[in-house]
Amino acid sequence: MSRSGDQPVGALPFDVEDVGARALAAARLGVRGANPLVGAVIVDAAGRRIAVGHHRGAGTPHAEADALANLRADVESGRLDITDANPPGAWTMVVTLEPCHHTGRTGPCSHAIRDAGIGTVVYAVADSTDTASGGAAWLAAQGHRVIAGSALAPEWSRAAAQLNHRWFSARAAGRPFTTLHLAQTLDGRIAAADGTSQWITSTASRHHSHRVRARAEAIIVGSGTVAADNPRLTARLPDGSAAPRTPLRVVMGHRDVPEGAALVGDGHYRHVRSRDPRAVLAELASVGIDHAMIEGGASIATAFLREDLVDEIWLYQAPLVLGSGRGAVGDLGIDTLSAARRFEYDDVGDGALARCGDDVVLHLTPRAADHDTDTLMRR
Amino acid sequence: MSRSGDQPVGALPFDVEDVGARALAAARLGVRGANPLVGAVIVDAAGRRIAVGHHRGAGTPHAEADALANLRADVESGRLDITDANPPGAWTMVVTLEPCHHTGRTGPCSHAIRDAGIGTVVYAVADSTDTASGGAAWLAAQGHRVIAGSALAPEWSRAAAQLNHRWFSARAAGRPFTTLHLAQTLDGRIAAADGTSQWITSTASRHHSHRVRARAEAIIVGSGTVAADNPRLTARLPDGSAAPRTPLRVVMGHRDVPEGAALVGDGHYRHVRSRDPRAVLAELASVGIDHAMIEGGASIATAFLREDLVDEIWLYQAPLVLGSGRGAVGDLGIDTLSAARRFEYDDVGDGALARCGDDVVLHLTPRAADHDTDTLMRR
Ligand SMILES: NC(=O)c1ccc[n+]([C@@H]2O[C@H](COP(=O)([O-])OP(=O)(O)OC[C@H]3O[C@@H](n4cnc5c(N)ncnc54)[C@H](OP(=O)(O)O)[C@@H]3O)[C@@H](O)[C@H]2O)c1
Ligand SMILES: NC(=O)c1ccc[n+]([C@@H]2O[C@H](COP(=O)([O-])OP(=O)(O)OC[C@H]3O[C@@H](n4cnc5c(N)ncnc54)[C@H](OP(=O)(O)O)[C@@H]3O)[C@@H](O)[C@H]2O)c1
Repeated sequence: MSRSGDQPVGALPFDVEDVGARALAAARLGVRGANPLVGAVIVDAAGRRIAVGHHRGAGTPHAEADALANLRADVESGRLDITDANPPGAWTMVVTLEPCHHTGRTGPCSHAIRDAGIGTVVYAVADSTDTASGGAAWLAAQGHRVIAGSALAPEWSRAAAQLNHRWFSARAAGRPFTTLHLAQTLDGRIAAADGTSQWITSTASRHHSHRVRARAEAIIVGSGTVAADNPRLTARLPDGSAAPRTPLRVVMGHRDVPEGAALVGDGHYRHVRSRDPRAVLAELASVGIDHAMIEGGASIATAFLREDLVDEIWLYQAPLVLGSGRGAVGDLGIDTLSAARRFEYDDVGDGALARCGDDVVLHLTPRAADHDTDTLMRR
Repeated sequence: MSRSGDQPVGALPFDVEDVGARALAAARLGVRGANPLVGAVIVDAAGRRIAVGHHRGAGTPHAEADALANLRADVESGRLDITDANPPGAWTMVVTLEPCHHTGRTGPCSHAIRDAGIGTVVYAVADSTDTASGGAAWLAAQGHRVIAGSALAPEWSRAAAQLNHRWFSARAAGRPFTTLHLAQTLDGRIAAADGTSQWITSTASRHHSHRVRARAEAIIVGSGTVAADNPRLTARLPDGSAAPRTPLRVVMGHRDVPEGAALVGDGHYRHVRSRDPRAVLAELASVGIDHAMIEGGASIATAFLREDLVDEIWLYQAPLVLGSGRGAVGDLGIDTLSAARRFEYDDVGDGALARCGDDVVLHLTPRAADHDTDTLMRR
């Protein structure tokens, strides 16, 4: 376990809860998806915050590397004056997640910290993933002072665990992180009684959802949506051109996908002949997908919600009232209020709520149960 | 008609669309209810905006009086320097609604403008109510230059008509302006399958709705809510004490109200033995109610929505998903998407959307149909 490498605390020249809160605020600027939200602050021997960094999503630098790059840029431009009397060995990096020890699309943060010569590392939560853990122990073995936040600053550590609790649980289950897209009327309908449903939401909402889509590695729809709408499921920019990265299109359901269906397109497509959300996610994990977006329709959204397999929701709410027609969410087997699925409005990244053309867009994530957070903190 | 008193336009020392937009922005700071939203700007001969005012709701000064009071305060405090070379006769008041000519809780604005000696009045929309109209004609007869905005600045006039379109139509129908309160889950439910519904929303949302309630002159509930919840329906402050003004409690429905029902309370209460929303509003109008809040339950909310008798909605949305149970809105006789009731997110007063404890609160008003706006502008 990474905490085995921890060293005795000793005096730090700053308030860890304080600097930790700043690192968490930086983490919250990122977006949810394949990677966890992480923020880092570098403090010098005098307790001055000399750099802040955060992770911006899969394929971009980790928070530690971002903070180091910001530091370097500030020194080079002369905005920050580092003298010989202020050596990196006397600095501390405060980071909301244990530095990774894994070479992915970016190099391991453990090495970056060693190369920068930063003397002390304080991290809020241990990295429990098979692939990236071990950074703390490795840094300690290299002679760095490494401190786990759970004992030193438990509130900070708890908040950091909560921030990514669904990412951790998705990882622990070996499945992709999931984002659910819902577009509905004020009274929670996605189609009128006669089946008409295009367009409930405005062009601005569709552009917004294309932006969210472009972050995902796969987009899942049910065979019913394919039959009804024959969607292309590309991620398009507002001008109609394709986004730089195109997610894998995934259809779930027993029915055949009609020949010539629009989403088959360039072949970057997969049909999973299953109605079981877990089986679909397992198949996606097996081909390396870490972040899947669930686009609908209602049966699919319901199936993922029923199994508590939704890690993030983007809800586009059009200013319409229908009073009847199809609901966005079907029966979840919940029959009393205290058993309702509990989310919380989520202000990370693009924020918890915003106007979006004529609509509003609401951003939510499941609320962490206390025992889940405790488990994360004990690791 | 008020426009009969209008005089030829002549040159004005400012851009009317521009100053008009500023007056509209001021109007939007007010709250919806018994009175329309109105804003006023006073411009001097040099085209300088020397005062801005707006109406803050029933019982408070009208926008014109507010602008004049702000002007006086600025002159008295020395913030504004008015010389003899800058006489009121050369000033213009730009106001989003024809000045009233009626003594209610405040004196007539027509007189206030005459007393202040302001030479020119430009108004966006004519006041078509029986009680308050005639201000423009009276001011013209007193020798003021009075200009209707519809010809001079049609976009401004149209925007001003749209801002209060529901208030005008409620007045034209001789009924109170209505505010609907809805509290629901993300999927539009107000109760779980087993009937549990307390509490879907948070304490903060209930405090917010008490604040909105305190603005209304009456609160309407159905006999079902009385039977199920036995609510007190007082407007309470967050500390639990009674708000300064207590609205009339109104129960609608054929059933008797149980003896000792909590809302009977101090006797400031009325039972309307009817299921017809129009009849209920007519009875309230007959006792002088200009603003009624519809608190529920679902049958009552549905009845008012079905008859297009909802002028404003406050929607409290808890971060819960139920998947089944009772919907907040029942059948409206709408079977296709193009027939949906169309609202728009409404940023007047407290704004269109906000976090409210764990919930979000959304504020909406019916979208104006073009022909309704045209009718208002022709008056
Ligand atoms: N407003 C929105 O956000 C949104 C988004 C997408 C679609 N829609 C609308 O939703 C409508 C389609 O809804 P829908 O429910 O028919 O389509 P759907 O959810 O896309 O697909 C339903 C079909 O998927 C298969 N399936 C796979 N797993 C399932 C499971 N766990 N439970 C149930 N079915 C499963 C079943 O067909 P098999 O027999 O093939 O297994 C089922 O008939 C369309 O009108 C579309 O426009 C709205
Ligand atoms: N979440 C919220 O915002 C909110 C707010 C209030 C209440 N509630 C919940 O709503 C539930 C009560 O709902 P509800 O629908 O039974 O109560 P309701 O809407 O308050 O009252 C329904 C009753 O009102 C009468 N009524 C009057 N006009 C009517 C009309 N036009 N159409 C139909 N009925 C009319 C009928 O009884 P008669 O036979 O007497 O005519 C009917 O049974 C309770 O559980 C309460 O907690 C929720």
